[in-house]
Amino acid sequence: MSIADDPEQPRGYLAMNAYARQQAFSDAAVARLRRIADVDIGECITDFDAGGDALAQARFLITGWGCPMLTPEVLDRMPRLELIAHAAGTVKHHVPAEAWRRGIAVSSAADANAEPVAQYTYAMVVLAGKRALSGAGRYAQQGQWPSEDWRGAASLVGKTVGIVGASRIGRRVLRLLEGHGLELLLSDPYCDDAAAAAMGARLVDLDELCRRSDIVSIHAPQLPQTRHLIDARRLDLMVDDAVLINTSRGSLVDTEALTQRCKGGRLDAILDVTDPEPLPAQHPLLRLPNVLVTPHVAGAQGREVMALGEYAVAEVARFYTGEDLGGAVSEADLATMA
Amino acid sequence: MSIADDPEQPRGYLAMNAYARQQAFSDAAVARLRRIADVDIGECITDFDAGGDALAQARFLITGWGCPMLTPEVLDRMPRLELIAHAAGTVKHHVPAEAWRRGIAVSSAADANAEPVAQYTYAMVVLAGKRALSGAGRYAQQGQWPSEDWRGAASLVGKTVGIVGASRIGRRVLRLLEGHGLELLLSDPYCDDAAAAAMGARLVDLDELCRRSDIVSIHAPQLPQTRHLIDARRLDLMVDDAVLINTSRGSLVDTEALTQRCKGGRLDAILDVTDPEPLPAQHPLLRLPNVLVTPHVAGAQGREVMALGEYAVAEVARFYTGEDLGGAVSEADLATMA
Repeated sequence: MSIADDPEQPRGYLAMNAYARQQAFSDAAVARLRRIADVDIGECITDFDAGGDALAQARFLITGWGCPMLTPEVLDRMPRLELIAHAAGTVKHHVPAEAWRRGIAVSSAADANAEPVAQYTYAMVVLAGKRALSGAGRYAQQGQWPSEDWRGAASLVGKTVGIVGASRIGRRVLRLLEGHGLELLLSDPYCDDAAAAAMGARLVDLDELCRRSDIVSIHAPQLPQTRHLIDARRLDLMVDDAVLINTSRGSLVDTEALTQRCKGGRLDAILDVTDPEPLPAQHPLLRLPNVLVTPHVAGAQGREVMALGEYAVAEVARFYTGEDLGGAVSEADLATMA
Repeated sequence: MSIADDPEQPRGYLAMNAYARQQAFSDAAVARLRRIADVDIGECITDFDAGGDALAQARFLITGWGCPMLTPEVLDRMPRLELIAHAAGTVKHHVPAEAWRRGIAVSSAADANAEPVAQYTYAMVVLAGKRALSGAGRYAQQGQWPSEDWRGAASLVGKTVGIVGASRIGRRVLRLLEGHGLELLLSDPYCDDAAAAAMGARLVDLDELCRRSDIVSIHAPQLPQTRHLIDARRLDLMVDDAVLINTSRGSLVDTEALTQRCKGGRLDAILDVTDPEPLPAQHPLLRLPNVLVTPHVAGAQGREVMALGEYAVAEVARFYTGEDLGGAVSEADLATMA
């Protein structure tokens, strides 16, 4: 239904905490939302029980960090609800399967969050390929340049990069790495050869990916079955001087096993996430010259968070002008959502 | 003149040391060169006086590291010489102004070397914008994450990036940074407003660039007049927490002045080149958590060097099929060549 057909602008609410509201919604996004919908942007719902009868008129919700679970009881009180546009990544902690059964469209701004993570990853792959970061670590520690031999391998061109997970972010990283003279491998249980080839990569199983890659970057979701996906055995499959990059979640890697292998100098690591997180002061991973641990900054930070709000508002606009949602989430997606 | 018009393939020589020959020429490049020219690829000239009469037949030279100066006396012995294709960056140490006066075309593979430097710089700008590297340094040193306040500024989007020098590399970096939500500034004495605008940047003088940029990246050539281009005064113009990136030459920055300001924590730095180079062991720049010094790896290394040879061979092919050279160097270019 387009706005032109609808004399009454769609009524909606923001459901998120004050921090999310302040971080994710620029003045421009708020102004745009006001033009297309009947929404009191100053009033954020953090408790649906306190919402009173007003909820009965809600046709859409923009949700964000701190949004409580939309239980069937809560949904019962919003019989006109037709769209949940989440101004953040995963919806699995607040949107139940029940929502889809009631025909409510669900959207996530994960795409907007994927961009900075993919850029961070791309940057780290470039620097890992050129051995820039481990080179800096060695230079600082040894007070001299690494050898000519070492330098001969300090080339991005010719390296093999293994992407673990054809997720939103994994796919973006593959796109960014095209045309760089790399061999690109992909491991993903939900992907086939043709889909991988369309992404410029060759589909291999995870063991082969570990065995063949100079750089391994993890973009798989945190799920019970992905805990320690990269364990001691798979770390031992990796080639000498391979670099492990993790921007997904710390639990996907066996931290203790990785620490041992980095200590011995066999593997390098670039970690934006760890388990535990943050690492305790004095943790060896924070001290090793061949390991870089960044303080969970790969995802949207500061001004980048505004993109999440802009994305959710754009989804509301698309929905009410009859366009396809950019970030539609299906019930089946829940199972593999981080 | 095209090869088809020329029953006799053009005779050429390689003039470079054995290391350059081995590093820069892949089997594929050699095979291609043999298809288009009459050249003994196994025999590299490192001393033109030892060349004997054979030089008189030379129509082109592919030069590389270790090529001696092509003095007028040497050029006298190559009356048929019409092309010098350099399989490396600057030609100013072996090609004299006299070459242009004799109508010899001159080409450089600097474009092929610009690619890895631009990629390194792009990666460092992304990570500087996200404060990833200084964040890692603080995390390692303090054993805890930086504050939420610090994190609020850890966004690439919204940052101002100042590019010093619209050189081959500077222009490429500007192109890579387009569409990232950045304000791009450019300072270059040979550039005008329209040219800067075409590169997506706003032309400002160097002082204003220093005052306004969150990230300053140097891409100017090493010349007597660019020594200490970034001196104590200009460092003091920079905003707090600004990041200085240098991939050009160490002499463009006053190392001592930069060291003082990084020590105090006011500025961060990412340096692939320093003065002196390498830095002495124990130099403070190698110890500071807000400074990353990489061992001069931004330019082509290892497999990437092959691209220089491929470029020079492609230039020979273009020349003899009547196409424009990709990396033509004019006599006037010498003055601003690194």
